[in-house]
Amino acid sequence: MDTSQFRGVIPPVVIPLSEKKTLDLEAFDRSINRMIEAGVDGLFFLGSSGEVAFLTDAQRYHVLQEAVAIVNGRVPVLAGIIDMETMRVVDQAKRATGFGVDGLVATAPFYALGGPKEVERHFRAIREYTDLPLFAYDLPVCVHTKLDPTMLVRLGKDGVIQGVKDSSGDDVAFRWLILENEDAGHPLQLLTGHEVCVDGAYLAGADGSVPGLANIDPASYAEQWKAAQAGDWERVKEIQDHLARLMFMTRRVKATVGFGAGVGAFKTALWQMGVFNTNQMREPVQPLVGEDVEAIVDVLKAGGLMDPDAPIRK
Amino acid sequence: MDTSQFRGVIPPVVIPLSEKKTLDLEAFDRSINRMIEAGVDGLFFLGSSGEVAFLTDAQRYHVLQEAVAIVNGRVPVLAGIIDMETMRVVDQAKRATGFGVDGLVATAPFYALGGPKEVERHFRAIREYTDLPLFAYDLPVCVHTKLDPTMLVRLGKDGVIQGVKDSSGDDVAFRWLILENEDAGHPLQLLTGHEVCVDGAYLAGADGSVPGLANIDPASYAEQWKAAQAGDWERVKEIQDHLARLMFMTRRVKATVGFGAGVGAFKTALWQMGVFNTNQMREPVQPLVGEDVEAIVDVLKAGGLMDPDAPIRK
Amino acid sequence: MDTSQFRGVIPPVVIPLSEKKTLDLEAFDRSINRMIEAGVDGLFFLGSSGEVAFLTDAQRYHVLQEAVAIVNGRVPVLAGIIDMETMRVVDQAKRATGFGVDGLVATAPFYALGGPKEVERHFRAIREYTDLPLFAYDLPVCVHTKLDPTMLVRLGKDGVIQGVKDSSGDDVAFRWLILENEDAGHPLQLLTGHEVCVDGAYLAGADGSVPGLANIDPASYAEQWKAAQAGDWERVKEIQDHLARLMFMTRRVKATVGFGAGVGAFKTALWQMGVFNTNQMREPVQPLVGEDVEAIVDVLKAGGLMDPDAPIRK
Amino acid sequence: MDTSQFRGVIPPVVIPLSEKKTLDLEAFDRSINRMIEAGVDGLFFLGSSGEVAFLTDAQRYHVLQEAVAIVNGRVPVLAGIIDMETMRVVDQAKRATGFGVDGLVATAPFYALGGPKEVERHFRAIREYTDLPLFAYDLPVCVHTKLDPTMLVRLGKDGVIQGVKDSSGDDVAFRWLILENEDAGHPLQLLTGHEVCVDGAYLAGADGSVPGLANIDPASYAEQWKAAQAGDWERVKEIQDHLARLMFMTRRVKATVGFGAGVGAFKTALWQMGVFNTNQMREPVQPLVGEDVEAIVDVLKAGGLMDPDAPIRK
Repeated sequence: MDTSQFRGVIPPVVIPLSEKKTLDLEAFDRSINRMIEAGVDGLFFLGSSGEVAFLTDAQRYHVLQEAVAIVNGRVPVLAGIIDMETMRVVDQAKRATGFGVDGLVATAPFYALGGPKEVERHFRAIREYTDLPLFAYDLPVCVHTKLDPTMLVRLGKDGVIQGVKDSSGDDVAFRWLILENEDAGHPLQLLTGHEVCVDGAYLAGADGSVPGLANIDPASYAEQWKAAQAGDWERVKEIQDHLARLMFMTRRVKATVGFGAGVGAFKTALWQMGVFNTNQMREPVQPLVGEDVEAIVDVLKAGGLMDPDAPIRK
Repeated sequence: MDTSQFRGVIPPVVIPLSEKKTLDLEAFDRSINRMIEAGVDGLFFLGSSGEVAFLTDAQRYHVLQEAVAIVNGRVPVLAGIIDMETMRVVDQAKRATGFGVDGLVATAPFYALGGPKEVERHFRAIREYTDLPLFAYDLPVCVHTKLDPTMLVRLGKDGVIQGVKDSSGDDVAFRWLILENEDAGHPLQLLTGHEVCVDGAYLAGADGSVPGLANIDPASYAEQWKAAQAGDWERVKEIQDHLARLMFMTRRVKATVGFGAGVGAFKTALWQMGVFNTNQMREPVQPLVGEDVEAIVDVLKAGGLMDPDAPIRK
Repeated sequence: MDTSQFRGVIPPVVIPLSEKKTLDLEAFDRSINRMIEAGVDGLFFLGSSGEVAFLTDAQRYHVLQEAVAIVNGRVPVLAGIIDMETMRVVDQAKRATGFGVDGLVATAPFYALGGPKEVERHFRAIREYTDLPLFAYDLPVCVHTKLDPTMLVRLGKDGVIQGVKDSSGDDVAFRWLILENEDAGHPLQLLTGHEVCVDGAYLAGADGSVPGLANIDPASYAEQWKAAQAGDWERVKEIQDHLARLMFMTRRVKATVGFGAGVGAFKTALWQMGVFNTNQMREPVQPLVGEDVEAIVDVLKAGGLMDPDAPIRK
Repeated sequence: MDTSQFRGVIPPVVIPLSEKKTLDLEAFDRSINRMIEAGVDGLFFLGSSGEVAFLTDAQRYHVLQEAVAIVNGRVPVLAGIIDMETMRVVDQAKRATGFGVDGLVATAPFYALGGPKEVERHFRAIREYTDLPLFAYDLPVCVHTKLDPTMLVRLGKDGVIQGVKDSSGDDVAFRWLILENEDAGHPLQLLTGHEVCVDGAYLAGADGSVPGLANIDPASYAEQWKAAQAGDWERVKEIQDHLARLMFMTRRVKATVGFGAGVGAFKTALWQMGVFNTNQMREPVQPLVGEDVEAIVDVLKAGGLMDPDAPIRK
């Protein structure tokens, strides 16, 4: 299975909604094209930033159908197949496959936890039902299990998974994953889910990144990846500092916490920048308003993503 | 909305599988009838013990269809509508309603967490889409949010929820919930999810219990509830000690942890007692074998649930 | 080692301070005598409620010296010997012993965690250095390790520990501890650290309780224990409801969280009731003020602990 | 207060013990000199790796007395003043100061937790009692509170603290700390506690590192710091990979977990390399034996820290 296409910057795509909380196709098209034109290397739909947990099955497949059509083969498409336990994930995998995506992304089981045996068996069972490249999504903040590096490399050598999207925040374990993957002949494409410490991950040997913030500033992430490939580490760091300061937008939100603050800030930024038409969120999350919107605009202006004189959209 | 029917012992029904991991209708019928005949006051399908996280949607609705037919109105039926976020839960609610169940049970949002505002809005949004009695399922071990007693009573007074199944293990918060519910005129039916401390919950004023262990020994739980209604607390405690010792079966499992040890032990017990035909589990969980089975049989024999001379089923 | 004296209500004593944050001996004397006269069965000094973590060693031994003198043999005295790891705890044990206390209370190691082997070895090592009765203090909220019931009973049978103060909030594990202790011939005195679910613990077979709230209302806890001994469970429950409502005082605090809200509320209540002369706290905690004090007074008046017309002390 | 001396590699010193668990002065002298001669920039005594939690007060001050004498001004000396709450920490600060150390290192309060107000007040209170440079030690794995970057920089601007030793493992927050510290004019010296991701921390702008593994291989950490100063990031990364592989020694331990596996592996390595005379640990931790020792030797040989033909010391 050739996985060489899954390298570089692969943003998890944030989904624009109309005021009525339906998919805003015009903004979706604009945002996707903006990222591809900025030079991203792939796109990941139905991840956490893509509100996968909030979408009904019908809404999920609507997103995939439109996404594949808009991307139209210009970059590879990864699709999240996020559900609670193995056979529900298999159902999601079968359906996603029908929409022509290039790879699948699955987490460990969640809701009813087991131990490491069950986690490994879970990925092996999914492989039995799909021929697409499969990425393990290491996301303990959502699934409450940390994936063990040694197990991941074993699954890679056995052809069960072809890559890892690491959003664990555990950079020590990610380093061990990189080293064990090298020792095994690099069976896995290793992508960091960081927005803020991508420079260190590239220096350590990551094959790419999946930063939600690349929806806001795809050009900087694309340039950063090129600088890393060229070994220009001072430039990689310089761009990272700019991006880390942009990420302050998620720290400025006062009205809520968790998903509503993080993806809520991204949607608000895209709205204020004119990429999205609203910053609408899905139930039970409410869009940000008032001083939270103002704080995000301040961050965007400080980061050069908005004209200093631009008014706040209402 | 009359919720007086949701009192007493309402076991979360464990699902028997064939060796091929399909619903074993014969055993399902036997187990349900055994519980009803033992005097339980209701049945809860598609809870955690009912493997809800592991069932595909098709399998979930198959369970509900058969369950409603077998129960046939003899006791009220609660159905779990467990999914990640609001609109996915609403989808589950709409479908479950079509199968003729008497009430619904929903957790807080999980996977993508927010704060208390989102949790409250979540339940209010579900209410907009259903006319059935709705129970809030407080299950932080699975959903990683503890439901606040004051919020629950507020939702009760507003007619959003009609009861709570408390599996939080936080008996202090449950006591506060009972007291606040009393002060508000008892809008909520409060059911403890404990197997082991049901006596204390009854003494504190709980309206009933939802013990997974009642699949194994429904008669004792039914008798315990009657003793509590009669104020015979010494008897309530005596039965509880018997049941707590039975629950040791889940502590004896060595091969795995979590769901596979808990529900795995229940299925193994029901198999060894002749209620189930196998102890098969759903992917990625494996059925218990060898010394784990032997240990469970020992507990059953010590508790008088199996004949001391009965051989171990293979 | 005779441990029969360690039964019934053994409040963890809250320490009164002057405005200058020194031990207020007058109030200390008044509060201790008030509890003994109300019928408590023992007193526990230097527990969490006794600010053990905040006291310098010199302050700790000052408290013990004065406490033993005031109690003067009327009830048994337990002393917390709380420190990070084994040999520091042994140091505390040796010194506390010199002040003539009747028993010692030690937690699992904290700060640098190990596994269950180290926890068991820790208690065995402490035993080598003391001849006093030793209670294991199960307090995961502070030490981040839950003590295993089977290990505790093993330590009891081996004469290492003579009792357990269970403040784990894990009532299932406490039930198992009670049952395993019975099966082993009751080597351990089992005390619940609950304020709010003491009724259930007594019904389950606890040998007593260590409720911080008994500093506020010792008479009710003493009466509750007598009612439990007499098998009058309705009365036990009735008193518990009164006490649970009193405990609302800790839920009303808005200015801070954690220790400052819990013990801060107790000190404020004792101050408003005239038992303490201030509600002063130790660094870095600040005493409660303003609306937090008013809310606590409201709870005390509703519970009959303060005259409805009494003014708020300033 | 000049803090420019606290830069570069400042290992947390691991303490050698005799078979009788007393300080092994000969090995202590050898290990300290070995690190200074290898080019480290400072030494940190009484940190977690220095068994601070396990030492009685008398043992702590013995360590400081000998350490200051051996170091003899060649590099600056930091001393941990680790205790539960503010005034206990102040006691430790006063005593450590008497031994002539150059700076102090304090954690957030632990055992009895409060909120952010108490954490900030804690550091401000310590400052009132000492004139030495003070480092905040961010160590949630031991103290269960994460220090907020914005608060740390505020304390830095106010002259309360002069630096941070970040062992939080939260590299995103560390990046934010670096950026906010820059914006404030660099009041704080920021040291990463990582062993494994030091390269990323240097690239991000850290002022140095406090790696326990530098007890084993001080020369590599010293060279890595020089390469970082010179901007040779490929070399920084190359050395990091070597060091990360050395750190595998802590992952190979099977007999225990936590502190006993981590510092236990370091002591075993130093013993096998001939720097220490034993791998003895303090109660309740046991030294590693058998296959754990063999696995550590394998890692040392693979990393070039031991001769491939060297026998295993018994």
